[in-house]
Amino acid sequence: MAKKQLTGNMLIAQSGGPTVVINQSLVGAVLEAKKHKPIKKIYGALHGIKGILEEDLIDLGRESVRTLEDVARTPSSALGSVRKKPTPADCANIFKVLQKYDVRYFFYIGGNDSAETTHIINEEARKAKYDFRCFHICKTIDNDLRENDHTPGFSSGAKFVASAFMGDNLDNRALPGVKINIVMGRHAGFLTAAAALGRVYPDDGPHLIYLPERPFAMTRFLKDVKTAYNKYGRCVVAVSEGIADRSGKPVASLFIKETDAHGNVQLSGSGALGDLLAGEIRSKLGIARVRADTLGYLQRSFPGIISANDAKEAREVGRQAVKASATGTQASGSIAIVRKPGKKYVVTYKRVPLKNVAKETQHMPAKFINKAGNDVTKAFIDYAAPIVGPLPKIGRLKGVRVKKKK
Amino acid sequence: MAKKQLTGNMLIAQSGGPTVVINQSLVGAVLEAKKHKPIKKIYGALHGIKGILEEDLIDLGRESVRTLEDVARTPSSALGSVRKKPTPADCANIFKVLQKYDVRYFFYIGGNDSAETTHIINEEARKAKYDFRCFHICKTIDNDLRENDHTPGFSSGAKFVASAFMGDNLDNRALPGVKINIVMGRHAGFLTAAAALGRVYPDDGPHLIYLPERPFAMTRFLKDVKTAYNKYGRCVVAVSEGIADRSGKPVASLFIKETDAHGNVQLSGSGALGDLLAGEIRSKLGIARVRADTLGYLQRSFPGIISANDAKEAREVGRQAVKASATGTQASGSIAIVRKPGKKYVVTYKRVPLKNVAKETQHMPAKFINKAGNDVTKAFIDYAAPIVGPLPKIGRLKGVRVKKKK
Repeated sequence: MAKKQLTGNMLIAQSGGPTVVINQSLVGAVLEAKKHKPIKKIYGALHGIKGILEEDLIDLGRESVRTLEDVARTPSSALGSVRKKPTPADCANIFKVLQKYDVRYFFYIGGNDSAETTHIINEEARKAKYDFRCFHICKTIDNDLRENDHTPGFSSGAKFVASAFMGDNLDNRALPGVKINIVMGRHAGFLTAAAALGRVYPDDGPHLIYLPERPFAMTRFLKDVKTAYNKYGRCVVAVSEGIADRSGKPVASLFIKETDAHGNVQLSGSGALGDLLAGEIRSKLGIARVRADTLGYLQRSFPGIISANDAKEAREVGRQAVKASATGTQASGSIAIVRKPGKKYVVTYKRVPLKNVAKETQHMPAKFINKAGNDVTKAFIDYAAPIVGPLPKIGRLKGVRVKKKK
Repeated sequence: MAKKQLTGNMLIAQSGGPTVVINQSLVGAVLEAKKHKPIKKIYGALHGIKGILEEDLIDLGRESVRTLEDVARTPSSALGSVRKKPTPADCANIFKVLQKYDVRYFFYIGGNDSAETTHIINEEARKAKYDFRCFHICKTIDNDLRENDHTPGFSSGAKFVASAFMGDNLDNRALPGVKINIVMGRHAGFLTAAAALGRVYPDDGPHLIYLPERPFAMTRFLKDVKTAYNKYGRCVVAVSEGIADRSGKPVASLFIKETDAHGNVQLSGSGALGDLLAGEIRSKLGIARVRADTLGYLQRSFPGIISANDAKEAREVGRQAVKASATGTQASGSIAIVRKPGKKYVVTYKRVPLKNVAKETQHMPAKFINKAGNDVTKAFIDYAAPIVGPLPKIGRLKGVRVKKKK
């Protein structure tokens, strides 16, 4: 535990897939930093660790509060992002740059891969006995970071997904058929599960939900679709981009070959998985009207749909990371969102060790998934609804039938 | 011109692709009808002319004002929709059903195909000397109906598309590469062009816009993308689903075989066109990070994004159609939106003959498209921005560079 105030510069960067509230965390951190005298310069590295390695820095101390507040409301990493996985040589070089610019406060906003990078940089500093404050600031629409009840970015992504399914269900009700929507989330199904939050009436879609936490079998999928289609005369399906077969092989990977620097298969930015599933339904079930949309990057970047909780919490994790480091109570860590038990939605913030959120991800717990593995449970709705907050209000005609005339 | 008040029942139906404000027109018509004593029963046919043919009707007079107002705010045809093109036998049968239920007031909410159907039914009535009021009520996100400055549904669709590009441009700025978004609009490029409304800063995307009004050539497209990518280090492209080659053959039709009842190629509900274009860029230009999203059905059904003008105007065309018919001033027609010249955005409503909006569609005028055929002009922005109304406010860091240390 850090005991004294440490004088020096601060550096902050953003990494991984952007969210609509990732700049709230940036601005929360910068505004908090301005309150602490030991923090001198506030550097922002452009495009994550790439900007550090190339010494591509901007002076965030010269941004007006007005600009910062405008940026806070703006989706997608204002400092730019990166998907680079640092090599051991990179980590050594990053540490050299931090020393060169007398950076004593380092903050990295990102997911579990970024937490791992932050952890390695902190270890470098520790080995070199460099006096250093090093924090990871959580973000990911995937909601898959350990230690967190949920992560900044998820609530807004979930609000978008729930809204999208709400509208699409109404569209499918007007022009019946089978509609598949592919939702982001490589290993964790939280975002796909959020589709269920858009249900208002008992016959509303999504009628089926497929998550990466359960093995996907095409024959079973086709049987489910047929059953739902026969029951409702239509069928809306939520499918995670990360669905995988029993051996763990992603269904999408049969068609998409590209991988990122972390070795992950590139699942987004293509309509291939949706088109594959739609094609199977068309040919095997003989249903004529089958459509597939891939919700795509809008899920993490759409400016019109931001959850108020999400904006507030993202701001707070940024602020708390700087506060914990600058008041000297903590030398390193990640700020986790913890929910208080009870009916009312209240969250607190807790410092956790870097290694606790690094590398591994958390999945949908079993209690959130139905037995058949094709829907979510009430426990999931109870968990997610308060986080996401209010959704658009919709109505339906009473629809009193007119007696047919003879 | 109708001269006397006509006593009888009313029937209203919805047709074609839903919009987020199509129920405003329905509710505008129903609430207006309740004010006119000669209009007795208010029937709603389920799923357009299919519901008329099958006598599948509901009693809209039994819906409360509260339910109707909830429905007005709800996306997608509350009565259900249909893509059925009536045969001459169907038209004769429809007319028989209308007579059987003593329908003297008929309203059909839809696009140009629906206007044609309405026109045919009106001709049947005229030939039979059946005293009848017959109106088409405009809707289409494609904005391609003649006589109209713009059509109900377009403004909200355009707001969604502009917002989507605004966010996606920021995402692409954070993680540079080439990003293609496929936008709805079979023959008219208005909705794709609306992507340009999301530009705030000079280097903002979409950097290229491809409309169905200009022939699409792959070599030219690849050259454009390369030039933009070299200039900006990234490239966001708006592509209409309806782009076609010089012979008029849709690029998408090379991959999608399905057609609807009107003989139109099914362009939506597949990621094939985006994936094709992304694949060409990847292989021919050697750019690694290329992504494609198809904005899909969200453009016409997303509940969170509704233009206030659009909601008001959609309500008004429904109301005015019933008013014109019930006050006996007009026997048939379609209510068109006309914009008053001048700086301030003011619209009026005008009855036009059914045949004027039937069948043919209007395209983007030449003055809205740049010479190179890969962008829109200021004239388009001046036309579309007041219709769509305010977009989300975004900000950008000043970004004062830190001098590199030696």
